[in-house]
Amino acid sequence: MTGVYQPRGRFITFEGGEGAGKSTQVRSVAIFLERKGIDFVLTREPGGTSGAEAIRELLVTGSPARWDSTVEALLNTASRRDHVERVIRPALEKGRWILCDRFLDSTMVYQGYAGGIQIADLERLTAFAIGTLKPDITFILDIPVAEGLARTKRRRGHENRFENREDEFHEAVRIGFQKIAQRASQRCVLLDATQPEETVTHRITSIIQEKFLIDV
Amino acid sequence: MTGVYQPRGRFITFEGGEGAGKSTQVRSVAIFLERKGIDFVLTREPGGTSGAEAIRELLVTGSPARWDSTVEALLNTASRRDHVERVIRPALEKGRWILCDRFLDSTMVYQGYAGGIQIADLERLTAFAIGTLKPDITFILDIPVAEGLARTKRRRGHENRFENREDEFHEAVRIGFQKIAQRASQRCVLLDATQPEETVTHRITSIIQEKFLIDV
Repeated sequence: MTGVYQPRGRFITFEGGEGAGKSTQVRSVAIFLERKGIDFVLTREPGGTSGAEAIRELLVTGSPARWDSTVEALLNTASRRDHVERVIRPALEKGRWILCDRFLDSTMVYQGYAGGIQIADLERLTAFAIGTLKPDITFILDIPVAEGLARTKRRRGHENRFENREDEFHEAVRIGFQKIAQRASQRCVLLDATQPEETVTHRITSIIQEKFLIDV
Repeated sequence: MTGVYQPRGRFITFEGGEGAGKSTQVRSVAIFLERKGIDFVLTREPGGTSGAEAIRELLVTGSPARWDSTVEALLNTASRRDHVERVIRPALEKGRWILCDRFLDSTMVYQGYAGGIQIADLERLTAFAIGTLKPDITFILDIPVAEGLARTKRRRGHENRFENREDEFHEAVRIGFQKIAQRASQRCVLLDATQPEETVTHRITSIIQEKFLIDV
């Protein structure tokens, strides 16, 4: 090991229910990091590699009844393994940052808290697939279910398998994310996503600045 | 619970390396059961449901480097969950028999013994997905690697991702199946698949007759 000291990159994830504005915030934070001269990778789950995107297609299209929560958890974990080993881990080791639209918490919420699978089972599954890797910080965008779903109606594509779930499911998703924000309060920041887009972005970039960019 | 006594169906699996003649034997056994008036389902893994067949497509096509063993194990287990819950378990509960071309042992061998994943990890993964379900009997077709691969060359389609693995992998697969036959000797029957097709079929159907069809 010679050469200059290369700090490990920062791993930042964005979580929340349908229509909370994750993708928009990820893009705004990308612009912020670009201006700071940070080398980063913008990616998403399920997906992020050609293989994982093929698995995503199975997960997010078709009728809600296409898969049960257990199959969903296994498919999500398969795609996550591919994504982590081929993109996230190598990038972090090279000192690059990761901005990821959804990650492990989505599995804990969609298949666990809302899907009925025991969290301990999902934790074991995760350990098998990706070991102990965790984001450095997770921004959880919180929005009332009706408001979030109304936003998604405006952009509807073919990736609507989860959007088409019943309202109770979406309520359980919201509560699940709130639980995670509480339980993993060191890592997670719960944000009110009903606020104007720029307000949310400003809050996120301020936190990133303070936690990770003191010297930049 | 009223009505006539309905015995649980028998769950019969066929395992072995590439070109061992599994599919041929499954078909021959199907004809045998048909003649006996047994109600059965002929199926295969990965696959057996529309969802599981879509996952199969990801697993068996493309270059060997497309997935690592861990992703393969997760995808196989996802497809198995779907297949077990939607086809195998309901059929067995109705008293129908299952003839399945590959099942759990293939995962233990291809991703475990030959793929490098710990057997204990694969057992935990399996318990998560399908609980304790096991075949009633498993016929393992054993053939020298070169001979098996020569047979597959004659029928090559697009499903050749595993066939295209290096020879050492196929040797490890063969040894893995032999190990399972030894360790689970109550459930498994190891058969010399270099024998004439009819000889192998006769051996299999004799065992089925003796074990499960005394009264038929």
